[in-house]
Amino acid sequence: MSFDVLQDKIKVKKNPTVAGLDARVEYVPPLILKKYTDQQGETLEAAASAVLEFDKGLIDALADVVPAVKPQSAYFEILGWRGMKALEEVITYAKEKGLFVIADVKRGDIGTTAAAYSEAWLGSTQVGGTPCPVFDADCVTLNGYMGSDAIKPFLKDCAERDKCAFVLAKTSNPSSVELQDIVAGDRLVYTVMGDLIQRWGQGTEGKYHYQALGAVVGATHPSVLKELRRRLDRVFFLVPGYGAQGGTAADVRHAFDELGRGAIVNASRSIMCAWQKTDKDGADYQEAARAAAEKMRDEIRQYVTIL
Amino acid sequence: MSFDVLQDKIKVKKNPTVAGLDARVEYVPPLILKKYTDQQGETLEAAASAVLEFDKGLIDALADVVPAVKPQSAYFEILGWRGMKALEEVITYAKEKGLFVIADVKRGDIGTTAAAYSEAWLGSTQVGGTPCPVFDADCVTLNGYMGSDAIKPFLKDCAERDKCAFVLAKTSNPSSVELQDIVAGDRLVYTVMGDLIQRWGQGTEGKYHYQALGAVVGATHPSVLKELRRRLDRVFFLVPGYGAQGGTAADVRHAFDELGRGAIVNASRSIMCAWQKTDKDGADYQEAARAAAEKMRDEIRQYVTIL
Repeated sequence: MSFDVLQDKIKVKKNPTVAGLDARVEYVPPLILKKYTDQQGETLEAAASAVLEFDKGLIDALADVVPAVKPQSAYFEILGWRGMKALEEVITYAKEKGLFVIADVKRGDIGTTAAAYSEAWLGSTQVGGTPCPVFDADCVTLNGYMGSDAIKPFLKDCAERDKCAFVLAKTSNPSSVELQDIVAGDRLVYTVMGDLIQRWGQGTEGKYHYQALGAVVGATHPSVLKELRRRLDRVFFLVPGYGAQGGTAADVRHAFDELGRGAIVNASRSIMCAWQKTDKDGADYQEAARAAAEKMRDEIRQYVTIL
Repeated sequence: MSFDVLQDKIKVKKNPTVAGLDARVEYVPPLILKKYTDQQGETLEAAASAVLEFDKGLIDALADVVPAVKPQSAYFEILGWRGMKALEEVITYAKEKGLFVIADVKRGDIGTTAAAYSEAWLGSTQVGGTPCPVFDADCVTLNGYMGSDAIKPFLKDCAERDKCAFVLAKTSNPSSVELQDIVAGDRLVYTVMGDLIQRWGQGTEGKYHYQALGAVVGATHPSVLKELRRRLDRVFFLVPGYGAQGGTAADVRHAFDELGRGAIVNASRSIMCAWQKTDKDGADYQEAARAAAEKMRDEIRQYVTIL
């Protein structure tokens, strides 16, 4: 139940990191993009084919290094329905390779609509008498600004299909302070949100004692990681902001509990775009991504021992 | 600039309402769904075709009554890439009919990702040297929990392409109180968000003095509508929660300024599902939707005179 599946995969690979699949068209090695634009012109169709090949190549290169991948919906929506088709294929492909898939969608809406989002991303859509799975990821990211109405429908699908979700608490970006750090009584807004997340998830603990509802807490705020780890002892953390955004291994160690569990650290650009630093025009994008993922794993292992 | 295009359309139709296109499969009249499931089985493909026909039929029926439609992304995502293809077609069709299209996506992410979302929904995607428009709506809804990083990229596309966006302030759903009504100094969280929205939008005023960044404020909180209308005098309001969720014409009048401007009221189920109350099994879904939209318009006109 809950985050057990992910924690088990982390344990096997001894690696508490997730590779973000955030492929803007510009991040795709030129030789891959050119192959498709030569055939189909500079179109969304060509771009979607190129992104799909790139993401599958990354998955091949990373599948025995990382336990999980996190495709970011925006970089597929930007290619329209063709991008969403590629996203369905990326999720299926990653799951076939044994990877845990976190769909980074940050959805949040009123109850009836949240139920539809949950069916789309975790559950399945009922057409007449037939349930049709759609994106069928293992986990999603959510935005809790609208309160429990936006979250509860996902908990239902999590319980029924052994899945889980992360809700934004304190995000890694610079402007997260504008609302999240506002003082609210004796707490800050992000602490209020963190407390809500722990409360909403009550009763969904798995064998590692983590609930099915986790929290997003940025690597760029190590003191917040430390504070929230102590405060929210049953909440699994997704920690973005490592690498390109500035978070280090020393920063993210605070996200883990004393057994080295309860968190997964994301890096996107530093892995995906590693090829841009080797002067080979992307021909080595798989080796470069793999090396970057191994480096990140080894850096974090210096601080975190996973039991 | 900014909300001028929408306010002009409201003025012409003397109708400050928007019809939500939130078609769950179950909301599609059975005769339409059956046509496609007979051909394609109980599949996402059949459901997407049925939703597309239903939405186009609603647009035909409503095009000379309402100034705008608001497709809700969740009800297209729930049908996977086929649903997103239908959404692209719905947006194009509505624009061809002269309707203003608000894509209800409630996206919110870090800067680079917000830029991708903005290109997807308002701007265009660059493939090599070619700009490719994607969903190309006139307006989107956004979630500002992550602060200005999540919003600013949209303002750039709004300025360049004469579009606009709404950010969630106080939402219509029951659990909106859980975070949005938390006391934060001498304000509440939704007031903090409202003030941020007005600040982020500064300098983008159009001829009606409204900024390109509006706010979502639910019809289910009339006193909040009154308070925020006074406080945020340059912020256009999108008011959901009319009808099925409980908001009335007497409630929503507080969203408008003294010239009857500055707000648009949404209803979804009460229009879309009006056919369920006429005992004709959906054969009259267009007439029923049109009658419901006219009724809503006339109710609101009793309280609001648009100058």
